Amino acid sequence: MSDEHVSLEDSPRKDLLADLPARVREAGDRIGSYVRKTYLQPSAWLSRLSGGEVLLKLENLQHTGSFKVRGALNKVLSLPAAERARGVVAASTGNHGAAVAYALGKVGETGTVFVPRTAVPAKVQAIEWLGAELRHVGEDPLEAELAARSFASEGGKTYISPYNDADVIAGQGTVGLELVEQLSEQLGDQQEGLDAVFVAVGGGGLVSGIASYLKAVQPSVQIFGCLPARAPVMAECLREGQIHEVPSLPTLSDGTAGGLEEGAITFGLCQSLIDRVVLVSEAEIAAALKQFISSHHQLIEGAAAVALAGFLQVCRKEAQQESAQVGPEKETGQGEMNGKRIAIILCGANISPETLQEALSS
Amino acid sequence: MSDEHVSLEDSPRKDLLADLPARVREAGDRIGSYVRKTYLQPSAWLSRLSGGEVLLKLENLQHTGSFKVRGALNKVLSLPAAERARGVVAASTGNHGAAVAYALGKVGETGTVFVPRTAVPAKVQAIEWLGAELRHVGEDPLEAELAARSFASEGGKTYISPYNDADVIAGQGTVGLELVEQLSEQLGDQQEGLDAVFVAVGGGGLVSGIASYLKAVQPSVQIFGCLPARAPVMAECLREGQIHEVPSLPTLSDGTAGGLEEGAITFGLCQSLIDRVVLVSEAEIAAALKQFISSHHQLIEGAAAVALAGFLQVCRKEAQQESAQVGPEKETGQGEMNGKRIAIILCGANISPETLQEALSS
Repeated sequence: MSDEHVSLEDSPRKDLLADLPARVREAGDRIGSYVRKTYLQPSAWLSRLSGGEVLLKLENLQHTGSFKVRGALNKVLSLPAAERARGVVAASTGNHGAAVAYALGKVGETGTVFVPRTAVPAKVQAIEWLGAELRHVGEDPLEAELAARSFASEGGKTYISPYNDADVIAGQGTVGLELVEQLSEQLGDQQEGLDAVFVAVGGGGLVSGIASYLKAVQPSVQIFGCLPARAPVMAECLREGQIHEVPSLPTLSDGTAGGLEEGAITFGLCQSLIDRVVLVSEAEIAAALKQFISSHHQLIEGAAAVALAGFLQVCRKEAQQESAQVGPEKETGQGEMNGKRIAIILCGANISPETLQEALSS
Repeated sequence: MSDEHVSLEDSPRKDLLADLPARVREAGDRIGSYVRKTYLQPSAWLSRLSGGEVLLKLENLQHTGSFKVRGALNKVLSLPAAERARGVVAASTGNHGAAVAYALGKVGETGTVFVPRTAVPAKVQAIEWLGAELRHVGEDPLEAELAARSFASEGGKTYISPYNDADVIAGQGTVGLELVEQLSEQLGDQQEGLDAVFVAVGGGGLVSGIASYLKAVQPSVQIFGCLPARAPVMAECLREGQIHEVPSLPTLSDGTAGGLEEGAITFGLCQSLIDRVVLVSEAEIAAALKQFISSHHQLIEGAAAVALAGFLQVCRKEAQQESAQVGPEKETGQGEMNGKRIAIILCGANISPETLQEALSS
């Protein structure tokens, strides 16, 4: 991320925003046979707590344990055959790296994933087992990314950004497409859609894809973009109205960490699409993770817990406000989420045993 | 469990064994719309480790977090309307209680679940949230069970055993039915079926249901029945050739714990169906659980980890034997599982955060 401020005057975001719903539908057709239609699961715990109807979109059960395969597959499958054959390059030791490796494996192509020499061996091995060629370059993610980009441009190969790419965003948007289909299937014709969606925001690809599609089919849906308070990059950029460098601290939500690159197309999309930003503390993320495991007996990673923690914070704040207004006998379940239908996007599962233990013992 | 030994002379096990495959198919039709067709997921980790092709049947993702809903649903849906209307009774603070409550909720019936007063509140609440009427009776599971049985017989209600019931067993067998369907779907016409299945054994309902179906369609499949060494009830009964009281110690695999009741129909089925018994230590269960979380980023409960630990033990033993025979340079992946197609049944997810933490820190 540069500290130069970027003008959005020339941003094609308005056209992209208008085009995205159709591109999400196309992505759905393109990647449908390669991805899991992940379960949409009601949460008795969160429904009782909020007084609403809370549905969990379980992308933690997606192939590779993250929604990122959707964007990677859509990008790889969208490339003209000649470009694909010249090669695909990515830089990531995390979900994006695994997603690109998985996508390439599925279409029978090769590709190169750049990882810094400091990367966690278990994560690197996972990417290698998925069939990608690995390049160990640099001492941190930025060095690996720069090496990947120059390797791609020198060799006429395609560099795949984890979020700053319309095809990647459209792929992530298929989470929203599925959500709408599943609501219709599970709840029948009587369903009146969603009132609110809680989703974690890192580079903004997931929220942009989902929200652009959902708002096209149901403009009244409220999008709650959730971020760790220790790494609130997109939140700070939105607050200032421009992309700029935002200091970040380590967070349980490693999946949303990282800067926003100059001219990122997700910035304008997030400006248009996110209705409310919710910042959550590390304690809130850890508590959400622990409570989720206790109630639903599934693993989620920090980034997924951020969306859940955002929902819990909104419920709690409302309860506190209501309680202050009407007296201490007021129970939870009477706040803003009462009577609403809410989806929480649980974007991934890839938490290390060490981080899990840290969260459980907090 | 009584210490009287029970003769199997009059056991209808032979007829039941012959009937089970058809009953499993019927169960599949009956419960198909109520259960999740859980994912069958390849494991790169275990495939590399064994030299085989290892597939995980993810019943940890089944509704209520356990395969037990299959048996409960099949039983409840098999009851004549008049019997169902008179009421259904179960005793369990664990997966079976939640399964019966879930099944009753799905068919719009009421029922009563007996729980001991000493039960863990979180587990009791889960059963209550599923809509069952709760009765807090007795100081331990056996007292609750006896109370449930007499309540059922006095009121002309149906008591549902967690394993000693042909309809329950046939319901659990639908895991095997799905497995065969998924192998065919995922692997195409070229697939040559399964060589081995690893499954945890408690009362024996799950293994009896799965194995009876699988052996009917593919007699060569080897069934590995896995038990915690600290609670090896069925293993000891099989070894002695009769049901008898077997001392048990607490285990991470609480889902398989409990005695085997006199005349249990699963005993004869297990005699016929289990090819090899594998006993695993608590350390092996904890290690399997931890390695699974690290590799697959999903939660499983102790009982599921028993099946996985059983597989790991077989691979390790082979590797040690091979190594002793041919020298220390011999690698794993050359043992009995090499080149085989293996399914491991991950039967449930319901582990408490405390037990999880215990396993992670072991």
